Amino acid sequence: MFITLEGPEGSGKTSATKFAVSKLKEMGYEIVETREPGGTPIAEQIRNIILDKNNKAMDARTEALLYAASRRQHLVEKVWPSLKMGKIVICDRFLDSSLAYQGGARGLGIDNVLNINLFATESTWPDLTLLFDIEPELGLARIQANSNREVNRLDLESLKFHHKVRSTFLELAKRFPERFVIIDASKSQQEVGEMVLKVILDKLCKLKNI
Amino acid sequence: MFITLEGPEGSGKTSATKFAVSKLKEMGYEIVETREPGGTPIAEQIRNIILDKNNKAMDARTEALLYAASRRQHLVEKVWPSLKMGKIVICDRFLDSSLAYQGGARGLGIDNVLNINLFATESTWPDLTLLFDIEPELGLARIQANSNREVNRLDLESLKFHHKVRSTFLELAKRFPERFVIIDASKSQQEVGEMVLKVILDKLCKLKNI
Repeated sequence: MFITLEGPEGSGKTSATKFAVSKLKEMGYEIVETREPGGTPIAEQIRNIILDKNNKAMDARTEALLYAASRRQHLVEKVWPSLKMGKIVICDRFLDSSLAYQGGARGLGIDNVLNINLFATESTWPDLTLLFDIEPELGLARIQANSNREVNRLDLESLKFHHKVRSTFLELAKRFPERFVIIDASKSQQEVGEMVLKVILDKLCKLKNI
Repeated sequence: MFITLEGPEGSGKTSATKFAVSKLKEMGYEIVETREPGGTPIAEQIRNIILDKNNKAMDARTEALLYAASRRQHLVEKVWPSLKMGKIVICDRFLDSSLAYQGGARGLGIDNVLNINLFATESTWPDLTLLFDIEPELGLARIQANSNREVNRLDLESLKFHHKVRSTFLELAKRFPERFVIIDASKSQQEVGEMVLKVILDKLCKLKNI
């Protein structure tokens, strides 16, 4: 099973998922946790270019192509081999982030960005996508309160940009209802963690019954 | 006018073009010489990932996406601004290299690679493409004889690979006859240089008369 986590920075998706993963491991599931952009040496090199605060001249289409390149390498070296071994892969950000950030918020168009991503993924879709939905104001306040985390190039975008990211994510959830589940990320970390665990277990049950 | 130089390594395209450029400059033309992948700081960072001999795990689609990303940034920051100022831009490698190396020789398919490149270039095509055609055996022998030049990841491919690159370039020349001119790169540097100059001047005349 291939699970992706989507939502803005500050939505707490990483922390909430840690709880669910530890419970799933206790239950005997083999889980591979990974993230985008990055996850393999070549993909990490690409990630460094994308997130470098000095690369202010980066064009939106360059950015979209770099994310797709990093995604491809990560699929080939990490996601596909793990899925073949029967493991559950949980990936922090995937295709939908490109559609929301570059397709929606940067205005390149969802279908244009989807098009280059289908080249990258050869149409590999997640079985389950958890959308951690939160008001951008609340998400950004959480980032600012978290002094351990370094601010990156995308955090520095305007509030309007982050609102457009959110609305595009919600649009994608409507377009792909068979794989999207929306999680209310404004709730406490404990509540969100339990919700994530429940959603994953439900999906595992359904896949077993098919 | 946007001119691109295509052909295998060892075809002498760079040296031959130097001669033509110096003559064109003497005649008063403003020329911008540039190269792919690279040409701007972000594009050079991408180039470093592509050509790094340690990145042996790189997938062909990752490579194609990285070339397209580098191409995009180079267009935005260097090619388009120079063309707007009325300069002649001469670019060492462009779109057709991706079509020949990744589309043809690596087997991704010319149209698949063209598709992601049309996203990158927003359909910017060269006015003139000089194809420096040479037997791969002769090209590789020239590289080996040139001790000043460092061997990169693509040079290390098999002879079969380089034959496929050549046949795809020739196929592209047939597909886009309005912009391709084939130069016999097995001739002496002086002869090739003079041929390049002649072809560029002919094209400049034609464009003026339109």
